[in-house]
Amino acid sequence: MNVVELKPEATAGLVKVEKLGPVLRLEMNNPPANVLSIAMMETLKAELDAAREDNSIRAVIIASATPGQLFSAGHDLKELTLHRADEDRGRAFFARTMKLCSELMQTIVHLPVPVLAEVDGLATAAGCQLVASCDLAFCTDTSTFCTPGVNIGLFCSTPMVALSRNVQRKQAMEMLLTGETIDASTAREFGLINRIMPRQYLGQVVMKYADVIASKSPLTVKIGKEAFYRQAEMPLDDAYEYTASVMVENMLARDAEEGMNAFIAKRTPEWTGE
Amino acid sequence: MNVVELKPEATAGLVKVEKLGPVLRLEMNNPPANVLSIAMMETLKAELDAAREDNSIRAVIIASATPGQLFSAGHDLKELTLHRADEDRGRAFFARTMKLCSELMQTIVHLPVPVLAEVDGLATAAGCQLVASCDLAFCTDTSTFCTPGVNIGLFCSTPMVALSRNVQRKQAMEMLLTGETIDASTAREFGLINRIMPRQYLGQVVMKYADVIASKSPLTVKIGKEAFYRQAEMPLDDAYEYTASVMVENMLARDAEEGMNAFIAKRTPEWTGE
Amino acid sequence: MNVVELKPEATAGLVKVEKLGPVLRLEMNNPPANVLSIAMMETLKAELDAAREDNSIRAVIIASATPGQLFSAGHDLKELTLHRADEDRGRAFFARTMKLCSELMQTIVHLPVPVLAEVDGLATAAGCQLVASCDLAFCTDTSTFCTPGVNIGLFCSTPMVALSRNVQRKQAMEMLLTGETIDASTAREFGLINRIMPRQYLGQVVMKYADVIASKSPLTVKIGKEAFYRQAEMPLDDAYEYTASVMVENMLARDAEEGMNAFIAKRTPEWTGE
Repeated sequence: MNVVELKPEATAGLVKVEKLGPVLRLEMNNPPANVLSIAMMETLKAELDAAREDNSIRAVIIASATPGQLFSAGHDLKELTLHRADEDRGRAFFARTMKLCSELMQTIVHLPVPVLAEVDGLATAAGCQLVASCDLAFCTDTSTFCTPGVNIGLFCSTPMVALSRNVQRKQAMEMLLTGETIDASTAREFGLINRIMPRQYLGQVVMKYADVIASKSPLTVKIGKEAFYRQAEMPLDDAYEYTASVMVENMLARDAEEGMNAFIAKRTPEWTGE
Repeated sequence: MNVVELKPEATAGLVKVEKLGPVLRLEMNNPPANVLSIAMMETLKAELDAAREDNSIRAVIIASATPGQLFSAGHDLKELTLHRADEDRGRAFFARTMKLCSELMQTIVHLPVPVLAEVDGLATAAGCQLVASCDLAFCTDTSTFCTPGVNIGLFCSTPMVALSRNVQRKQAMEMLLTGETIDASTAREFGLINRIMPRQYLGQVVMKYADVIASKSPLTVKIGKEAFYRQAEMPLDDAYEYTASVMVENMLARDAEEGMNAFIAKRTPEWTGE
Repeated sequence: MNVVELKPEATAGLVKVEKLGPVLRLEMNNPPANVLSIAMMETLKAELDAAREDNSIRAVIIASATPGQLFSAGHDLKELTLHRADEDRGRAFFARTMKLCSELMQTIVHLPVPVLAEVDGLATAAGCQLVASCDLAFCTDTSTFCTPGVNIGLFCSTPMVALSRNVQRKQAMEMLLTGETIDASTAREFGLINRIMPRQYLGQVVMKYADVIASKSPLTVKIGKEAFYRQAEMPLDDAYEYTASVMVENMLARDAEEGMNAFIAKRTPEWTGE
């Protein structure tokens, strides 16, 4: 049989979940490598799906519980390899893994609240894809990144979907073809990372960004995030036609009226999310 | 009634228009914020539409008449807010504003001559979009840029169409989600700005670039600018098929024959624009 | 008659071909300008087409035989100009030239093995396009790049297809509209070049990168390179659906099984290319 049934005990503790005011913090806690096993991906996805339904959550941070070590090593090679013994040589399990991984990454993109990656360590393969899939990404100055699937005969083909939408073409190709590791500074230069800082500041800086975002109208952020990724895939004229209509609806919402009135009156707006 | 009728007296002086040889210089002159009111957008668009019909114009500069202050604060929030009293709560006026804004930005993109932004000050929201929509952009080292709509409950959804076609994804997202201001140097690093310089040099440097472009064959520039934005939205094979045919027509034009002959003969070409 | 028949003697020596283990090295050898004449493009394309059929080739380097001078000046203006005397004023010959050029560039993109540009000198117009079309590009610190067609009345419309898929929009526009030359360091900053180094190291560094790539599973590299360029043109959901299926097929290949087993067992994998 090809399906892994997730037992509650199997996933307990896999992801540490913390609610810090309006910010949901998810820490991958599967040391030493925080592999994106089926259980880890299901758990992360379930937390994100739950966050979508929880109006009190305004931003999500994805971090690791093992600072300075592996942020995530990507897919669980041992889990995948075990399924080579399946009747279909693993095909169904591999397909399930890739489908779940793609769904997890797109869940991040489609989540109405921003998702911030907080990286302290090595993010590799699907772990690097996870960073690339977040809306914003922050890391320590000793963090590193790579897409080394080519070294084990398995090109990072799904990771590159996210990577190549963050990083220019030749830079992405260098990472993918050589499998080599880039440092934090190069990752920032390439566009994969927004900000780099020493370890002692990482947590509080990411939390500050999350809080800043959480202080905005959640309706406005939701409208904007969705429109951002949709218009990015459109020709210019369609993108303008689409976003112009988004703007009109946004203008008519209560939070825009409040925000504009507050701005003109030089007072702090009070959001209702409507 | 939702329609603002532009009276000539309302727009007089809103944009200072100067013809410097082959270069049209448009200075937004609506201090202190150079807001993109209906009147300002109509005036800018009218000037650009007129420039399209004037064969003596080879390049356009868009600047502000208030150096060191606001380049443009984007949409006119007071004008928009007034229309909340309309029967339709402003919907028609908002739609008209967004449509006009999108048309103005696309007029820049579709103009056969290059448009250069000359920025000395803060360009915010649709003001930042205006900079992003120009073919080239230059600024002083004290200029700043932001898309802060999120702060007033109105996500910069139309500005991000232009911004995200200039700037990599995570950088654009940081600007859009936080509303924070980036400095000139960051704007250049992000790809929003071509060149930065001290205020005392800005005008003459931008004029020099405009003059250099004006010295080329206007037919060639027109062919190339149009093809650039069109091919950018095509798959690779279509882009090659399309631009190969553009090249053949360009080769057969009189100016290419003259230019190639002049190059081979090591003399200066004389353009007729044919 | 508009057709140039390539005689063997006409192309002999135009491209120096060397096989260095698994690496095919092609040196353009048509000094002083290494123009991309019909003969040069046909020869390069024939070598690449042959490389596609030769399983012993794992990477291709495109270099010039004239280090420190012109890498390539792009199209052969004299050849093109001669055909203005044709009955059709050159139309058929120009169309043939552009078609061949586009095919050459797409042959690089579609080649199953990576192609590395090794640049020491000036790469201009279609010469710059050749660099942009390679998967990776390396150059000496004195190399320079430009797309100066606008100076001779012939906008670099086909070169910009490759350029604008490497370089951000405003940077590409500056090169195209002004025709000015950028240095190696700017080319790297723009994303056109992966690595810069002094001349004395160029050959061995590029060879090292080619050898590193040649040490990977050729099947894996082929799968990944093809998928990279295909997914880059897809919307996000299609890109994930497509690459997820690519990953599953890749997982089921013998080389991935070997690579993953070797990784888990901490030994060096042995590729069969299956």
